[in-house]
Amino acid sequence: MSRRYKIVFAFDGTAYAGYQFQENGIAVQQKLEEVLEYLNRSPVRIFGCSRTDAGVHAKGFVAHFDFDKPIPPKNLIRAMNTRLPEDIRVLRAAYAKPDFDARKDAKGKEYRYFLYNADILPPHLVPYWAFTYRKLDVAAMQKAAAYFVGRHDYVSFAANPHREISSTVRNIFSFTVKKTGPRIVFTVRGDGFLYKQVRSMVGFLVRVGKGEEPPEAVAQMLRDTPARTARVPTALGRGLFLWQVFYR
Amino acid sequence: MSRRYKIVFAFDGTAYAGYQFQENGIAVQQKLEEVLEYLNRSPVRIFGCSRTDAGVHAKGFVAHFDFDKPIPPKNLIRAMNTRLPEDIRVLRAAYAKPDFDARKDAKGKEYRYFLYNADILPPHLVPYWAFTYRKLDVAAMQKAAAYFVGRHDYVSFAANPHREISSTVRNIFSFTVKKTGPRIVFTVRGDGFLYKQVRSMVGFLVRVGKGEEPPEAVAQMLRDTPARTARVPTALGRGLFLWQVFYR
Repeated sequence: MSRRYKIVFAFDGTAYAGYQFQENGIAVQQKLEEVLEYLNRSPVRIFGCSRTDAGVHAKGFVAHFDFDKPIPPKNLIRAMNTRLPEDIRVLRAAYAKPDFDARKDAKGKEYRYFLYNADILPPHLVPYWAFTYRKLDVAAMQKAAAYFVGRHDYVSFAANPHREISSTVRNIFSFTVKKTGPRIVFTVRGDGFLYKQVRSMVGFLVRVGKGEEPPEAVAQMLRDTPARTARVPTALGRGLFLWQVFYR
Repeated sequence: MSRRYKIVFAFDGTAYAGYQFQENGIAVQQKLEEVLEYLNRSPVRIFGCSRTDAGVHAKGFVAHFDFDKPIPPKNLIRAMNTRLPEDIRVLRAAYAKPDFDARKDAKGKEYRYFLYNADILPPHLVPYWAFTYRKLDVAAMQKAAAYFVGRHDYVSFAANPHREISSTVRNIFSFTVKKTGPRIVFTVRGDGFLYKQVRSMVGFLVRVGKGEEPPEAVAQMLRDTPARTARVPTALGRGLFLWQVFYR
């Protein structure tokens, strides 16, 4: 009898063209499906909670799939990790209800963005930290981040919003900016995010931190919803982690 | 007038065939000399404090070189970092005495080795952590590490000792093993180390941690100095950092 599984996995996105199948480059999905096909002895389609872009990382990505010949979740974790490359690791696995959907059932997501703000970026932080040597005004960024919280039309902070089938309105539950020495961590939670929305919001906050935009510009853009322009740069992918996904 | 410089730099060894020129692969030295030649407008030879192997990292590597047309050390740091790849960063620079020698003047070195001991190695630790899922006996490793301290013939813990011109006797000042959750950090300080000595000592300590050798085997081997055999595996390069170099 076929069984549905929910798995939570982490990956280092450095070597991948993103989570989802891409025309060019290897996707994380591809690596997972190769292993699942081997274990199931026939092709398995895996359904992820979201796309992620090239170079973006995940600490708690969620996906579902069905197995024709079920194996206990604990054995599944070990069997998958034995065959996956080291930069993808299954952390948890469980049987799920037959209609569980990793994307549609997600009630919210948390992303974190890591930015190092000092004269020099230590080489060992390069894979997972964006960097700026320009001294950032953290208080201004915190003020600006707070304006994002709530239900807004984020069309000004999304790349190619035309690709979105439905609305560009999303609900952000919280958005914090914390600085510990040279390490600045942006943490944002919301019910969903548009294409490149997190990196666009962070890109804009960094401009606020540099004094190039006032914090109030966020409120103004969420109100007036101008088309996305060069005012909103996309922060580098390597600083971004899909941290966790929330389900009911 | 020519001036001698001492620089301290860090690098992520993942992409390199080691610090020193190699037949195959790019060396860190090569990247540094390319930049120094550009800044000096003529070839510059750089002299490092030691070799490091492929994949090994450095947090505080030291080297010296001469410039025909000196520039202030502070400007040198910025000029070098602008042109170096992100995985090599100059942290400090200073004028040195004309006879300063980064290798010969070194009074000691500290290496650290990072080993993750749990069921699963998180993907984001892969570049800088070795891994074993076998539960290690840390107390036994600590006891074994203490036997290394002192002046001994380390021929049993060096690869290709014939390549060494002089003696295989070295003095280890301290060797500690600390565990914090799944993270085990080996810290060793000594007046100098033979080829692959640190990774051989760590490789042997891990075997002690697995119960494959008693801690006392270290003392026995340092006393009887048998030729190096498969009893002494070389721990993976990626977990090793040249942490700092001591000068008078």
